[in-house]
Amino acid sequence: MTRYEQLAQQIREQIQNRVWRAGDKLPSLRESGKRAGLSLMTVVQSYQLLESQGWIVARPQSGYYVAARPQPLPEPARGEKLLLSEQVDINTFIFDVLQASQDPEIVPFGSAFPDATLFAQPRLARALSSVARKFTPHSSLANLPPGNDALRRHIAQRYALSGMQVAPDEIVITAGAMESLSLSLQAVTQPGDYVAIESPAFYGALQALERLRLKAVAIATHPQDGIDLDALQQAVDQYPIKACWLMTHFQNPQGASMSDDNKRRLVALLRERQITLIEDDVYGELYFSAERPLPAKALDSGGQILHCSSFSKCLAPGFRVGWVAAGRYAQQIQRLQLMSTVSTSVPTQMALADYLLHGGYDTHLRRLRRLLAQRQSVMRQAIAHHFPPTVKVSQPDGGYFLWLELEPALSSMELYRQALAQGVSIAPGRMFTTGDHFNHCFRLNASFEWHDRFEEAIKTLAKLIRQLEPAR
Amino acid sequence: MTRYEQLAQQIREQIQNRVWRAGDKLPSLRESGKRAGLSLMTVVQSYQLLESQGWIVARPQSGYYVAARPQPLPEPARGEKLLLSEQVDINTFIFDVLQASQDPEIVPFGSAFPDATLFAQPRLARALSSVARKFTPHSSLANLPPGNDALRRHIAQRYALSGMQVAPDEIVITAGAMESLSLSLQAVTQPGDYVAIESPAFYGALQALERLRLKAVAIATHPQDGIDLDALQQAVDQYPIKACWLMTHFQNPQGASMSDDNKRRLVALLRERQITLIEDDVYGELYFSAERPLPAKALDSGGQILHCSSFSKCLAPGFRVGWVAAGRYAQQIQRLQLMSTVSTSVPTQMALADYLLHGGYDTHLRRLRRLLAQRQSVMRQAIAHHFPPTVKVSQPDGGYFLWLELEPALSSMELYRQALAQGVSIAPGRMFTTGDHFNHCFRLNASFEWHDRFEEAIKTLAKLIRQLEPAR
Repeated sequence: MTRYEQLAQQIREQIQNRVWRAGDKLPSLRESGKRAGLSLMTVVQSYQLLESQGWIVARPQSGYYVAARPQPLPEPARGEKLLLSEQVDINTFIFDVLQASQDPEIVPFGSAFPDATLFAQPRLARALSSVARKFTPHSSLANLPPGNDALRRHIAQRYALSGMQVAPDEIVITAGAMESLSLSLQAVTQPGDYVAIESPAFYGALQALERLRLKAVAIATHPQDGIDLDALQQAVDQYPIKACWLMTHFQNPQGASMSDDNKRRLVALLRERQITLIEDDVYGELYFSAERPLPAKALDSGGQILHCSSFSKCLAPGFRVGWVAAGRYAQQIQRLQLMSTVSTSVPTQMALADYLLHGGYDTHLRRLRRLLAQRQSVMRQAIAHHFPPTVKVSQPDGGYFLWLELEPALSSMELYRQALAQGVSIAPGRMFTTGDHFNHCFRLNASFEWHDRFEEAIKTLAKLIRQLEPAR
Repeated sequence: MTRYEQLAQQIREQIQNRVWRAGDKLPSLRESGKRAGLSLMTVVQSYQLLESQGWIVARPQSGYYVAARPQPLPEPARGEKLLLSEQVDINTFIFDVLQASQDPEIVPFGSAFPDATLFAQPRLARALSSVARKFTPHSSLANLPPGNDALRRHIAQRYALSGMQVAPDEIVITAGAMESLSLSLQAVTQPGDYVAIESPAFYGALQALERLRLKAVAIATHPQDGIDLDALQQAVDQYPIKACWLMTHFQNPQGASMSDDNKRRLVALLRERQITLIEDDVYGELYFSAERPLPAKALDSGGQILHCSSFSKCLAPGFRVGWVAAGRYAQQIQRLQLMSTVSTSVPTQMALADYLLHGGYDTHLRRLRRLLAQRQSVMRQAIAHHFPPTVKVSQPDGGYFLWLELEPALSSMELYRQALAQGVSIAPGRMFTTGDHFNHCFRLNASFEWHDRFEEAIKTLAKLIRQLEPAR
């Protein structure tokens, strides 16, 4: 191949790889020549070759542009890419479920993200804009761990208004509650330690335990009242458990919440055994009742409870700003953060501080809670109307998940597969366990504004469930 | 204690903890009463008690405000907090060094961050502002891993202009190069695997290896030409090394760069042994010579080189946006990211895509390189003028670090301690090794605009070094 053919091939590959897209201007002849160490003449030959092949077009007095190409042929059906076998490793499987939830063609009942339109907040955009003006070169240093000072004080003030004594100094801003959880586990455990978790549990926590080489002791959890405290008592008698990770309110995936009595019993038990509690409370603000349920952290006396939360479910998905009220572990968590992600993104920290300063968060939350309660009710009605009566459905008092149980012999993996082929995603029970449990369960996201497409999706699921059921 | 005294004490503690600061408005009597489940009268008594004690003041028709309090007494001297003993664990020590670098009272020669004023870019602020207007609820989903589509294409185009074939599809946007590094290590290794690294090495990499329970094989590295390839050859003969992590250009802490010949030899060696290369190239754009040195990634043929970089050192510190061109590992890295930080902050991804679209990055980089070269030269002159001639100084061809060697018997930890007491930070050699090496070495940050304060700081260091030297 001559040099000019080589260059032409390189550029062709770049166009095929979408480095340059239809309409993009290519580097000038002179620049290309300089970069590639080729003479101007060679580059001219390359470009002429590409032009003759229809890859690029010359525009007089302007240069060369990537030509519009016919759309590539459709790829093999998306359904196929997602076909699963029981051997597929769980990470790949969860990734596929999450990817399917992002595809706009697919009804995202399997998604973990609340409906994006719930967060259309011009005031948040204004806050970001206002921060852009205030952003100075020194902002980066000022927002290093533990994070933005004003933001930490706003969060402490919200704790104070709920009657909780949390000092700004024990709050560390993180890249969402996932980072809070991961840093908290690192701060309080060593590899090989035992950690008590819920069963079923949020898959992110399962992954974090695996990554940190921790041993999970999974404690039965019920959609109505959360973790089984008798089982937990038994677990701490049997294993040298170092930490307990759980969601006290509107738990993912079941929507369970612990009663105040149970929270007291939990905290007393853990205190007695000197076990650290990592309380994941990302859904805590999404209550449907009259008052915010008080976190277990409110019962903390020795700084042994780390309370993790974020703005991702309530205010600003995509900002990736969360926090942990870390008690006596605050310093250690800062250190771990500085050594892993360095700091939380500065403009988003500043924008949230600005937003909270100017008020309106509570008004937004009230509207959000009302909408989520309405939407859950509508989805439950649709399920009641269409699903066979053998299907059990949870009724959480907050959050936006419904947990469903088929008859034990039926497979939610099979339902997932078939539903996806018909354009509907669900989150099968297997995502929420390291073992082989919950194969007849699945989670639905109830945060969407209802319309015909969703009603049809529920009908599709109902039809598929009926087909799975054995003839009677 | 009565109920009103209890409430008063709670609020007092909150003021002491800086939840409420001087001038902040307290919640109204009615709100406080409702939240605390107390009668209005009880709250009035609490507030009056606090007022009589001088903690809060009433403003007519407005409410209660936190009173201005005398400044607290100065805390024990900062130097003391940072006093070190050789037993202190390395994480705590590194954290203290980094904290000291952020203190505006201290000359930040020990800092790892480039001088913030180098990045005063109104265009970046405009990009952020413009993104605020374009930000929709759906942006969050659209920017999930692998990250912002336009941003990944801009990065691919910059690779293309350097003559490198990197498809946008193999690029994953991360929360800075630290996350790239961490995800890359997770993708290509299992706990217990051997990883070859530089010695001395960036402490963030040492920490990442420790966190992932990897075994480090530290390969001697020289300030002039980087990693010793004969030593690396020996290491791969001796250990079943799975991956090699290094910085090809302007390495942290020594400033070393590999020659093109050495990069070729490195890539050939690793390819032959099927060892993955994780190339950390965060300083690659900060070259002082005429052309950007080509990364080892340019020599990749089988997708076995992961090229990590970021905008943190070149354009937008604090945005926490980096990437990895991950070859065949791109999918796996997306999965790991979704399970750890979920995604990179969306507004900052979008702002950088907007900035790169509108041009001007190369103009900024040219200015940045010129300034860094000048500043390095000025600092080297000051060192030459003041330091004893026994001190050796590196002369990197890019980046902003200088690596200094005292006579072998002298302790840079001692110098660190004494310099800090006099308001000057340095980064002692011990930060860059898991062993007990480089005790006579230290790193200086040469990115600052020179003025008298810095000249004085160099004189202080010179004086302290002379005092450390034994009488001859």
